[in-house]
Amino acid sequence: MRGFARRSTVAEALAWLDQHTARCPEEWVPVASAAGRVLARDVTSPVDVPPFERAMMDGFALRAADTLGATSYNRLALEVIGQSLPGRPFAGRLGPGQAVRIMTGAPLPAGADAVLPVERVEIASDRVFALGEVPPGKHVGRVGEDIAAGARVLEAGRWLRPQDVGLLASIGLSQVAVVRRPRVRIVVTGDELLPAGSRPEGFRIVDSNGPMLAALVARDGGIPLHPGIVPDQPEAILQALRSECDVVVVSGGSSVGQEDHAPALVRRHGELAVHGIAMRPSSPTGLGMLDGRLVFLLPGNPVSCLCAYDFFAGRAIRRLGGGSADWPYRRVRAPLRRKVVSMVGRLDYLRVQLVEGQVEPLAVAGASLLSSTTRADGFVLVPPDLEGLPPGAEVEVFLYDHPVA
Amino acid sequence: MRGFARRSTVAEALAWLDQHTARCPEEWVPVASAAGRVLARDVTSPVDVPPFERAMMDGFALRAADTLGATSYNRLALEVIGQSLPGRPFAGRLGPGQAVRIMTGAPLPAGADAVLPVERVEIASDRVFALGEVPPGKHVGRVGEDIAAGARVLEAGRWLRPQDVGLLASIGLSQVAVVRRPRVRIVVTGDELLPAGSRPEGFRIVDSNGPMLAALVARDGGIPLHPGIVPDQPEAILQALRSECDVVVVSGGSSVGQEDHAPALVRRHGELAVHGIAMRPSSPTGLGMLDGRLVFLLPGNPVSCLCAYDFFAGRAIRRLGGGSADWPYRRVRAPLRRKVVSMVGRLDYLRVQLVEGQVEPLAVAGASLLSSTTRADGFVLVPPDLEGLPPGAEVEVFLYDHPVA
Repeated sequence: MRGFARRSTVAEALAWLDQHTARCPEEWVPVASAAGRVLARDVTSPVDVPPFERAMMDGFALRAADTLGATSYNRLALEVIGQSLPGRPFAGRLGPGQAVRIMTGAPLPAGADAVLPVERVEIASDRVFALGEVPPGKHVGRVGEDIAAGARVLEAGRWLRPQDVGLLASIGLSQVAVVRRPRVRIVVTGDELLPAGSRPEGFRIVDSNGPMLAALVARDGGIPLHPGIVPDQPEAILQALRSECDVVVVSGGSSVGQEDHAPALVRRHGELAVHGIAMRPSSPTGLGMLDGRLVFLLPGNPVSCLCAYDFFAGRAIRRLGGGSADWPYRRVRAPLRRKVVSMVGRLDYLRVQLVEGQVEPLAVAGASLLSSTTRADGFVLVPPDLEGLPPGAEVEVFLYDHPVA
Repeated sequence: MRGFARRSTVAEALAWLDQHTARCPEEWVPVASAAGRVLARDVTSPVDVPPFERAMMDGFALRAADTLGATSYNRLALEVIGQSLPGRPFAGRLGPGQAVRIMTGAPLPAGADAVLPVERVEIASDRVFALGEVPPGKHVGRVGEDIAAGARVLEAGRWLRPQDVGLLASIGLSQVAVVRRPRVRIVVTGDELLPAGSRPEGFRIVDSNGPMLAALVARDGGIPLHPGIVPDQPEAILQALRSECDVVVVSGGSSVGQEDHAPALVRRHGELAVHGIAMRPSSPTGLGMLDGRLVFLLPGNPVSCLCAYDFFAGRAIRRLGGGSADWPYRRVRAPLRRKVVSMVGRLDYLRVQLVEGQVEPLAVAGASLLSSTTRADGFVLVPPDLEGLPPGAEVEVFLYDHPVA
């Protein structure tokens, strides 16, 4: 039971973290499940899309020259010699004075160079009358006009949109190389804890950080691994720290007390680069490496756990998966309803509510009260160079709510 | 091959749609997998959290009265009679002049009413010297101070945050009632189409709308069901329209041509409420109901398909799942780089790029070119009451990119 020798600043901790966060290696996944993943390689199209000339309107394929001079007063007759449907092209070749009925998307018959839309013809059994002119190429989709063979269609690092997945399918790919999702081992320690899904009983309480962290990891694109509560013993914790994974997130036992085993284990078997950060809550946070894995020591108090996850672990997990360091929270700017007192040299994370367009800091600030983060609409940061903020100061609120909007 | 009798406005189509979109019924899911779902019922806590008085600091549990007058110059000795750890409370009762070593989160021993933090004591074998005073209740977490038994902790309709899942676990719930995710049958028709994962071959092209729609449905909280391409025959399409699901999304064959079977089937066997919408692209879109399911007839052209999905199907799928009608796109405002021509009475969906902080409409506007939606950064809407927009007009851009930000 002693204090931290020296607290790092948030900026120092982030600088160390960013230096030690490299993208995960690539893996190949079916195109159909690639949406929301990050491309690991540039994609070049092996084919032209479309691979053949096609009609862009329903109408008649013909030689444009055959419509010269056609108007509704000077109808020009053409012989209809067949039809072309998508996937079922007209087999023959079209000659002068001939037309082939054609549907949107169907291959243009050999010999034709334009499509006269159905709105500009009169149909009479085996003949059709052109009521207007079309120039060559009109209403014809060129080979490769969507995508040319050999073109780079999407670049490495791209977050794949739904339409990107459509595009990758259209060029005939079945698999695509994406950045692997980081596997994140969640290590919850505490002999007083019962696993989520239990009823609290006697002096035992239910683990809330485990399921919260699992949801946060999934939100940030990681694969959460949370096989259960880990006994509060050094051997058990060390074994968990050495799980098959890319990142270890430890909740509880992260401080400097005699029951706080994890910091000593990381220091002994790896590198404990940061321990103690000048922020409130979450000051007993640690960052390190063990056997090539990033290790985050998060406080057991649930608010501190959430805050420390969001500042450090979430950022690393998103970047390992090829994503952005930015928080997945919407932001709004609004004035403070009352003053906020902070301390120079320390970053403060304030849970707030939005009340009538103004920002109301929650009165209860205890890091142990998870309900303060469910009652809050979001949070505000008071930077370390300020002693606080006056009433009316415009602040940026990060909204906890639905990350899409 | 005839035109639409009358096009509905986008507003009319949305009004019909919203009237016919009710939330899906509830289902019970494990708390650990409830993040991102929408609560179907209010949740009331069956327990107090914490269920016992607990220490909020590492230190010594004692009677506050025993510290009266203590300073570093007037150290007051207390007998240490044991310790209380989380989950392993001190079994006895503390009397006057006694102290119990205690860790953060551990139960306060009977007889104690305060915790003196470790920083304010001197420890000497079986005794401890108080170096300061504490009032009764100091550093003690009260029973139910996080959550009181009987309190409503979360309300029906709430989108569950990661910390909400933690909270639900902490009150001892194992399952929670959430709005069921809508099952969305994707019906892709077109005899020219090969399933995604194939190489395009001869006059056959690969289905891009199916995988794009599946990704969109998943993004919007639905469960996509896409067992494969449906033959372009009325019986096969009708069977697909009657799949076990909440929503049917048909891609292709939605217009008024003779090969467009779906509209006639919906009209005959259900209700085709809207067919033809005053918008570009996507004007050949249909909305209807069949045996209690919402049916969306989307054009086969991929850009039209994306646009019509986003305007109508996506909105309904999000609302069925308990979510918001709003698009999951970030928005930015920026000036147009050049003028845009539109038509009064029609809503236009323009794909645009952001270039040096300005909005550049893409020159290629063909609804058949999916690549225009992968090259675009997002889209701009030109409302139906405008003939266009002048250069420099500030417009709102909906960004296709990463929906979280």
